Amino acid sequence: MNMKEKLTIIKVGGKIVEEEDSLHQLLAAFTAVEGHKILVHGGGRSATKVAAQLGIESQMINGRRVTDADMLNVVTMVYGGLVNKNIVVRLQAQGVNALGLTGADMDVIRSHKRPVKDVDYGFVGDVDAVNGTLLADLIRKGIVPVMAPLTHDGQGHILNTNADTIAGETAKAMADVFDVTLMYCFEKKGVLRDAEDDDSLIPHINESEFKRYVEEGIIQGGMIPKLENSFEAIHAGVSKVIITLATAIDGVSGTVIER
Amino acid sequence: MNMKEKLTIIKVGGKIVEEEDSLHQLLAAFTAVEGHKILVHGGGRSATKVAAQLGIESQMINGRRVTDADMLNVVTMVYGGLVNKNIVVRLQAQGVNALGLTGADMDVIRSHKRPVKDVDYGFVGDVDAVNGTLLADLIRKGIVPVMAPLTHDGQGHILNTNADTIAGETAKAMADVFDVTLMYCFEKKGVLRDAEDDDSLIPHINESEFKRYVEEGIIQGGMIPKLENSFEAIHAGVSKVIITLATAIDGVSGTVIER
Repeated sequence: MNMKEKLTIIKVGGKIVEEEDSLHQLLAAFTAVEGHKILVHGGGRSATKVAAQLGIESQMINGRRVTDADMLNVVTMVYGGLVNKNIVVRLQAQGVNALGLTGADMDVIRSHKRPVKDVDYGFVGDVDAVNGTLLADLIRKGIVPVMAPLTHDGQGHILNTNADTIAGETAKAMADVFDVTLMYCFEKKGVLRDAEDDDSLIPHINESEFKRYVEEGIIQGGMIPKLENSFEAIHAGVSKVIITLATAIDGVSGTVIER
Repeated sequence: MNMKEKLTIIKVGGKIVEEEDSLHQLLAAFTAVEGHKILVHGGGRSATKVAAQLGIESQMINGRRVTDADMLNVVTMVYGGLVNKNIVVRLQAQGVNALGLTGADMDVIRSHKRPVKDVDYGFVGDVDAVNGTLLADLIRKGIVPVMAPLTHDGQGHILNTNADTIAGETAKAMADVFDVTLMYCFEKKGVLRDAEDDDSLIPHINESEFKRYVEEGIIQGGMIPKLENSFEAIHAGVSKVIITLATAIDGVSGTVIER
């Protein structure tokens, strides 16, 4: 029996936090989540929009944003400022004591600039370490961290970092002290047998089932790395990973992966 | 004798944090300040620049920015994101455990939208209360808050707020638990008898001298509200206010006002 206090870490994509209706729904659902919690957000669509307004073109390779110096300024403004503070101020209005953070704040997440192999992604960070001590202290005091997808290299550079990775690495680091549930929210009900059929939800999945589904071609595309990350989190001590809709973060909906 | 731990709160204007050379100098000087500290920054020039790039015109009345909905998004991005995180990441590289904050984060500063009298300043906040308890806890743990000139109304709205006011109100709130020195940094050596002559520094000033200088026309313009705020801080328990150059934050340079 796990005697640690519960902590729910919820990652939501940019699309959800960037549209008024879905943001409103999400924040209501997030406010209703009981106990300690962290929200990790994206913001890619807003970054693309602000960049375009500034005459900066967004270049994506394999679904990842190429981040040159100008784009780094845009994502710093949009992720760290516009999207993050908009969420924080609205959670505060609902009585949730939110604290907006990038990985640079309190040195929470260190990363290194991704080495150039086939592709130069620019100022993109791969996570080295999550410094969870102060974060855990604040959470125990009732603070709800709201984390933007930005980290730092300890050498004075902000690095653009995948929000799924931030959520996963934070979950692993916090598993030492909390009983962690990690939720990945997206626009589907969870892992589906048939991507076009919302009724084909797979409610539970273990690693051998996952491998079989991949072999059979039932699970494919972007869901494969998401599930690989989920099992990695479970192996690292996270109690439960849930893949679900952003409006169904009640802890029972979606696809559940348990230790 | 004051047995409280020392806390230095340093407010620097936008000009200093927005140019590479002066920012570099400031951060070196700030890093060298011993003991607990807070940095409060502006960012008006960057906001004006980004707004212009987005096709949004900056309107100033009595030296204050008129903040409509579009401009509020700009200052949220620029103050809360670009300027704040750029300072945080560079302080981290110098071993200063910085935490970027707006007044919405951890509900640190509540304000209300300034009532419309002669001028409608839009989404501009007048400070109601600084919630210093968690801030003081973090400072005692070695965290160095870096505060952007944004507050919130508790109803879900970010409000653009004068950085001098943020520094002054934070100083007053922290004076309960710390021995606070408040520094206002600008482009002059301090309060000058002759604005054109850097050698005419007034090294110490008390309230009766201030009143006499104002009557005699020696102190005028923007220095009057700055000094009025300084004496208000002293009356509210702040130990010392220093008005100085951003590169001379050694605690002895500039014009000193003491209890």
